Amino acid sequence: MKDQSILLDHGSGGKLSNELINSILMPAFDNAILEAQEDGAIIPINQGRLAFSTDTFVVDPIFFPGGNIGDLAVHGTVNDVAMCGGVPQYLSVGLIIEEGFEISQLKIIVASMAKAAAAAGVRIVTGDTKVVPKGACDKIFINTSGFGFIPDEINLSASLAKPGDRIILSGNMADHGVTILTQRESLEFDAPIQSDSAALNTMTAAMLKAAPGIHVLRDPTRGGVGTTLCEIAKKSNIGMKIREKDLPVDQSVMGVCDLLGLDPLYVANEGKLLAIVPPEQAEAALEACKQDVHGKKARFIGEVVADHPGQVVMQTAIGGARMVDMLTGEQLPRIC
Amino acid sequence: MKDQSILLDHGSGGKLSNELINSILMPAFDNAILEAQEDGAIIPINQGRLAFSTDTFVVDPIFFPGGNIGDLAVHGTVNDVAMCGGVPQYLSVGLIIEEGFEISQLKIIVASMAKAAAAAGVRIVTGDTKVVPKGACDKIFINTSGFGFIPDEINLSASLAKPGDRIILSGNMADHGVTILTQRESLEFDAPIQSDSAALNTMTAAMLKAAPGIHVLRDPTRGGVGTTLCEIAKKSNIGMKIREKDLPVDQSVMGVCDLLGLDPLYVANEGKLLAIVPPEQAEAALEACKQDVHGKKARFIGEVVADHPGQVVMQTAIGGARMVDMLTGEQLPRIC
Repeated sequence: MKDQSILLDHGSGGKLSNELINSILMPAFDNAILEAQEDGAIIPINQGRLAFSTDTFVVDPIFFPGGNIGDLAVHGTVNDVAMCGGVPQYLSVGLIIEEGFEISQLKIIVASMAKAAAAAGVRIVTGDTKVVPKGACDKIFINTSGFGFIPDEINLSASLAKPGDRIILSGNMADHGVTILTQRESLEFDAPIQSDSAALNTMTAAMLKAAPGIHVLRDPTRGGVGTTLCEIAKKSNIGMKIREKDLPVDQSVMGVCDLLGLDPLYVANEGKLLAIVPPEQAEAALEACKQDVHGKKARFIGEVVADHPGQVVMQTAIGGARMVDMLTGEQLPRIC
Repeated sequence: MKDQSILLDHGSGGKLSNELINSILMPAFDNAILEAQEDGAIIPINQGRLAFSTDTFVVDPIFFPGGNIGDLAVHGTVNDVAMCGGVPQYLSVGLIIEEGFEISQLKIIVASMAKAAAAAGVRIVTGDTKVVPKGACDKIFINTSGFGFIPDEINLSASLAKPGDRIILSGNMADHGVTILTQRESLEFDAPIQSDSAALNTMTAAMLKAAPGIHVLRDPTRGGVGTTLCEIAKKSNIGMKIREKDLPVDQSVMGVCDLLGLDPLYVANEGKLLAIVPPEQAEAALEACKQDVHGKKARFIGEVVADHPGQVVMQTAIGGARMVDMLTGEQLPRIC
C-alpha cells in the first residue's frame, strides 16, 4: 500500500478497506485474536470465552425511516457480538457531538439507544462524550463497544465453512442502504422503504439452540451480502454457489436499485444475517430463523462447495454463471 | 436542562458536561453500573469483576510534543481501566478518518498505538474503520474501549473516600493541556514543554499491591485536578483540604499558565493520577508511586476531612483559604 491519501473507498467495507486493514492495521496491532478478523474479538478467559466488538456510526442522515443513528449504533454492536456467538450483555457509548447540535435531537437519539438496548437485553454501562467546535464533525458520531460471554458449545468463525454446508440469508437484501440513499437524494416513492436496522441476538440465540453446530454467522453490513460471502469463502478456503432467484429483495427496493444502477448484492443491511450451517442441522437452523420476527423471509440461498476455493459463483436468473467479487469502490459513503 | 444547543462547554469535563450526563444520558441509560460514574464500568461476572471503559479522542493537533492522538488513545483507556482497579488486557479501536488524510500519517499514528499497547501490556483485539467525506470530520478521531479483570481484594470507587484519608498526586499538573495549547497557538518557549501522556497501569498495580486498601484512584484528565477532586468530594460526601504549595507544577508550564491566565488546577493531565488512601497505607502507596517511572514527583497534596462535605478547600500559598469548584466553561476544546 503506497503512501497516498485516504479515499472514501478505504471505508467502503470492500477491497480497499481490506487493503487498509491488512496492510496497515493488522501488522501494527499484530496478535492472533485480532487476526481472526471476525465481527468481534473472541477472547479466552479463565471460565469460557468473551466476544468483544466495536463499531463507529457516522450515518448521514442521522434520522431515517426505520431508525436513527442511536438505535442503529446499539443494533450494530449487539449484532457483531451475536455473530461471534456471544450473548450481548454490556455496551459502552462514545459520543462525538458538533457544537451547536440541538439538544432536543440528542434526546431523541439517546432515547432510541436506551429503547434499543432494553429491547435487546443489554445494558449501557460506560460512556464518554466529546464536543468538537462547529465544523469539526458533521452533527454526531457514535461509537458503541460491547461484549458478552460465548456458550461453551458454540464455535463460530468465518474460517469454518465446509463443503456441503448450506447458506441461509435471514431476509430481504439492501433495505438499509437503499433507505439511506433515497433519504439523501430526497427521492420519494409510492411504497414506503425503510431500514431493516434491528438487533439479531434473539434470532442468533434461537438458531444456535436449534443448530449448535452452525459454522459461521455474519451480518452483511457495509459491502453487502456479496462482499460478506466473498470474505467467508476466502477465509474458509472453500467455494460457494448461490442462486440469484433465491436472493430476496423487496420489490420497491429493487426498483430503486434498478433506477440508480445499484446491485442489491452489495448494498448494506443492518438487520440481516448469513448463516453457514452443516447440512444435517440446516433445516433446524432455517426453521428457528423463520420463527423470529426479523427472520420471516429467511431462506437457503446456496451451498458451500469444494470447487473454486475462495470464490463465490452465482447462478443467474437467466441460467448463466456470474463470479461474485468483493465490492470495489464506495457505493454509499456514511451508510452506517 | 432546556432544549438548547450543544455548547463546547458540554464537552469540557466540567459543570455543563456533568449536567448533560446527569440530565440526559444517565436517565436514558438508567442502570446501577452506569450510575456509579467511575472512569469505567465495574461489572460483576461469574468469577470476579471486569472493568470496562471507553474514550474517544479528538485532540487537535493530532501530533504534539510527547505523543500523538494514537498513543494518547491507548493510554487514555488503559488508564481508565486501571483507575477502576482493573488489569487492562484487551482494547478495541474505532477510527473515523477524513477523506484525503495522508496514509503516511495514519501509519505513524497506528505504529504509536501498537507501541503504546505493547508497552502497557495490552492487546488490540478488535476494531472498526470509517472514512467520512472531506469536511465531515477534522483529520482523524479515535475511540478506544477496553477491559480487564479486577483482582478480588481491590475495591475502588469515587464514593469511598473517608475522612482521614490522604490524597496523593503522582506528579506535575497541567503538562498535557498546556502542551496542546502552546502547539495550537504556535507559542515557542526556551524550555521544552511536553505532554505527560503515559499508561499508568504499572503504577496502579504497584500501588494496589503496596496498599490494597486504596479507596479511590482517578486520572485527572479534562477538568484537571480541581474538577476531579470536586467530583470525588461530592460522590463520597466528604470534604477535602489541599495545600497550594504542595501542588506540583513545572516552572515552564506555570509560566505559560501565568501568561495565558490559566489555572493549572483545571488543566488536563494524561499521565497523572490521584489516589485517596487510608492513613495507615498512605506512606506505602506514595512510596510505590514514587518508584514508578511516571511517579517520581508524587506527593501528598492534602487530606479528606469530615468538614464541609462535598467541597474542596485549598489553603493558598499566602495563607488564605479558597474554595475549589468544578471547572465552568471550556478552557481548551479538543484537548484529548
